[in-house]
Amino acid sequence: MEKTTIYYKKNIKLKDPILIVGLPGIGAVGSLVGEHLKTSLNAKKLATLHSPHFLHQVLMLKSGGVRLVNNRFYYVNNKKTKKSIVILTGDVQAGSPEGQYEINEKIVKFFKSLGGKKIYTIGGYNITSHYTQNPRVFGVATEKKERKELAKGGVLIGQAAGAIWGSAGLILAFAKKHKIPAACLMGETGMLEIDANSAKAVMEKLIKILNVEVDLSSMDKIKAETEKMLKELEKAAPQPQGEPHSPSTLSYIR
Amino acid sequence: MEKTTIYYKKNIKLKDPILIVGLPGIGAVGSLVGEHLKTSLNAKKLATLHSPHFLHQVLMLKSGGVRLVNNRFYYVNNKKTKKSIVILTGDVQAGSPEGQYEINEKIVKFFKSLGGKKIYTIGGYNITSHYTQNPRVFGVATEKKERKELAKGGVLIGQAAGAIWGSAGLILAFAKKHKIPAACLMGETGMLEIDANSAKAVMEKLIKILNVEVDLSSMDKIKAETEKMLKELEKAAPQPQGEPHSPSTLSYIR
Amino acid sequence: MEKTTIYYKKNIKLKDPILIVGLPGIGAVGSLVGEHLKTSLNAKKLATLHSPHFLHQVLMLKSGGVRLVNNRFYYVNNKKTKKSIVILTGDVQAGSPEGQYEINEKIVKFFKSLGGKKIYTIGGYNITSHYTQNPRVFGVATEKKERKELAKGGVLIGQAAGAIWGSAGLILAFAKKHKIPAACLMGETGMLEIDANSAKAVMEKLIKILNVEVDLSSMDKIKAETEKMLKELEKAAPQPQGEPHSPSTLSYIR
Amino acid sequence: MEKTTIYYKKNIKLKDPILIVGLPGIGAVGSLVGEHLKTSLNAKKLATLHSPHFLHQVLMLKSGGVRLVNNRFYYVNNKKTKKSIVILTGDVQAGSPEGQYEINEKIVKFFKSLGGKKIYTIGGYNITSHYTQNPRVFGVATEKKERKELAKGGVLIGQAAGAIWGSAGLILAFAKKHKIPAACLMGETGMLEIDANSAKAVMEKLIKILNVEVDLSSMDKIKAETEKMLKELEKAAPQPQGEPHSPSTLSYIR
Repeated sequence: MEKTTIYYKKNIKLKDPILIVGLPGIGAVGSLVGEHLKTSLNAKKLATLHSPHFLHQVLMLKSGGVRLVNNRFYYVNNKKTKKSIVILTGDVQAGSPEGQYEINEKIVKFFKSLGGKKIYTIGGYNITSHYTQNPRVFGVATEKKERKELAKGGVLIGQAAGAIWGSAGLILAFAKKHKIPAACLMGETGMLEIDANSAKAVMEKLIKILNVEVDLSSMDKIKAETEKMLKELEKAAPQPQGEPHSPSTLSYIR
Repeated sequence: MEKTTIYYKKNIKLKDPILIVGLPGIGAVGSLVGEHLKTSLNAKKLATLHSPHFLHQVLMLKSGGVRLVNNRFYYVNNKKTKKSIVILTGDVQAGSPEGQYEINEKIVKFFKSLGGKKIYTIGGYNITSHYTQNPRVFGVATEKKERKELAKGGVLIGQAAGAIWGSAGLILAFAKKHKIPAACLMGETGMLEIDANSAKAVMEKLIKILNVEVDLSSMDKIKAETEKMLKELEKAAPQPQGEPHSPSTLSYIR
Repeated sequence: MEKTTIYYKKNIKLKDPILIVGLPGIGAVGSLVGEHLKTSLNAKKLATLHSPHFLHQVLMLKSGGVRLVNNRFYYVNNKKTKKSIVILTGDVQAGSPEGQYEINEKIVKFFKSLGGKKIYTIGGYNITSHYTQNPRVFGVATEKKERKELAKGGVLIGQAAGAIWGSAGLILAFAKKHKIPAACLMGETGMLEIDANSAKAVMEKLIKILNVEVDLSSMDKIKAETEKMLKELEKAAPQPQGEPHSPSTLSYIR
Repeated sequence: MEKTTIYYKKNIKLKDPILIVGLPGIGAVGSLVGEHLKTSLNAKKLATLHSPHFLHQVLMLKSGGVRLVNNRFYYVNNKKTKKSIVILTGDVQAGSPEGQYEINEKIVKFFKSLGGKKIYTIGGYNITSHYTQNPRVFGVATEKKERKELAKGGVLIGQAAGAIWGSAGLILAFAKKHKIPAACLMGETGMLEIDANSAKAVMEKLIKILNVEVDLSSMDKIKAETEKMLKELEKAAPQPQGEPHSPSTLSYIR
């Protein structure tokens, strides 16, 4: 296998599809949103992307089978809006720049071939080393119109700086090239490897954008458990010399 | 040399061949099984695989010659079953994902071109930092039928989790793609670089699957020497503070 | 995206263009010169180079948009000399040798297709761990005639040794191959990540070579601030044992 | 530049050429032999090899010019034997396996196109951490006949084990593939980055094999200086506790 390949089911009819990209990354915000959305909306498999730029491994399944690590497209037709939602989730992202450029342009071209109308990529925005109880949602978009709409919905536009790595960023660049409007929603996140709280903040925005109903209670449960665990850690942690351990380290920052 | 290439002897007739893949990896379980099987069955050279994704080195031989690092196919006709056994062993695996994907699909396609019927890859399954005296054998398989048969033979199906790296894993994925039933047998292993005990446990399963007779006494010898050495280390080792050194660290775990 | 690509505006007429290459590198000397020259001369965008060998990231803009990391060509027509100046700046250089060779030959070929007559690449020359108040400018050139002219202007020729990494070096090699005279100007630099003083020294030479007027007062300001900061650090720093901290560490060296 | 390329002078007539490969590697033995042979025999430039797998750098020359890092072929006609000697030296070797495989097969094919009859690659054989005053010369060869001849000349055949990395090894493998007899001569070497003593030992063997006259006094000078320096280090070095510093650490080992 020498090239990135997308295997897909033919004869699936989509109506003006919107793509949500929820892949592994900072705070696992993208993955959490992608997986939760897929499960909540009961989306069906549409396509699978394999690439020689992914890790050279298979994952063992409970069934006793295996699965090559991949990225997967799911779809669902939104009854309210009469439009299709396509969700991209996956186990991995490419480890090299060359792989990232190849794969992410293929994703955009494939979505364009489906008649794709809009793309939202999801990521975490790491600006603090602390846990954030009320994470903000930052956004960037390829078109002014979209920026205004996101701003109206409470997404912070033009307030984030720096780089967006991997699919969440490159898909925007290739969407611009192939003339599909695209935006990236980033949940503020701190030290956590898996930040359900940040993912929930993004989900709340996304639900309104997509006009779908999604139960966020499972995310609330993870959030509550995380906060309980962090409070216990706080009690147990020795106070570092000269740097008093204030409660503020767990509260809203910046 | 810019592409992975397989050089093979033509006009060799194989009958419904089964492939055993025993390449370097965790605990050297794959290599030990591959080499022992090849020697015991007196298998003959069938093909050699060279790749620019392997290490850029030749190995010096006792004869004063050299050999490019490679992967090698051997074959033997099983008189009992009237079927051919093909064994893949080698010095190395590719160091990059791209190399792994290219090489392992080539291996599967080559075996398919030989009329290949089934594949077993061999690996180590590292779930402990201790030496395991009675290692279990875990398995995954691409087809339900095979999983049942392996389970009957005492291979633990659906009980291993995580990733299988390299040829032992990717060959299963490509076998599935090219419609050859395939399984991976993994010997439980711990801290050892070369775990003959784990390899022996896999061999015992493999002997029954292939219906061949293989003398395991040489593996028993390595096992006995390893255990003697570990007991001496145990005596010599200073007791770590607060972590009493119990004999259980050398016994069956989990 | 699998190949380095240059997107450019057609129908722009250039007259005997000279290329100045100011990309990221040692002391950020190249970037500082490239950006300052572009801004001072009010140069216009000519072309954009994208490459799968660049970092897989987009940069967030104040507007709320994004930009794929890239290298950019700007142009301006010099009214005094009636010749065109082309300036290459950018966010990154390729991270792999293969990427560097591909991109830098593409840059030279593209400039040749524009009718390019001469190339100056800009870099830092790191020969000390100290800050240099009066940095010298070292030079190399593909042609003897150019070396003589640079020497007349006070550039030190044949006095630097070692390697020039990345675009500042490879572009000279490819210019030679494609028969475009080329030189590299290197500002002496020390421990600073961003050395405006070194960049200013190069600018002073470049202004005369290009016969342009450029205000260097903004560079003077950065220089003054840097020196103030370094003096404060000097006061604050504890004296290392056996190595008396003399004022000379901040003065001209070698 | 995307492929390894060899630029060569046409119309140069060679008679049954023998190739000596002296590239950078362990103890710089290959480079020292290659450069010394080239200079002593007054060999002329035949060809230059450039590759995108080499470091992305140019070297600054005393003339004020630059040179892309490369590998270079030189040739000389041996008046005694009426045969041509081709010498391959260079600044670098490829940093990746893929580059090494591509370049070294190109070298062998190019030499074959010149009518090449035999190849000797030169390397260091690192089996000790000490300086070796009387280094032995180890050898491997692709053909039995050559092994016997080398053994007659005092080269140790079949006594070295392990891997030969890079050009010194891969060229043997590709020579075998393309049916050119080839051998590798390895000078025993220890902790030194540049081991003139080891190179001299190889040179003494090579002079007889090639039937040429080469003045080794410059190597003797480097050897003498190295030994003087090491003796001074020995006096100055503090004695490590429990490991008495004996004079034997500078003498013949194994």
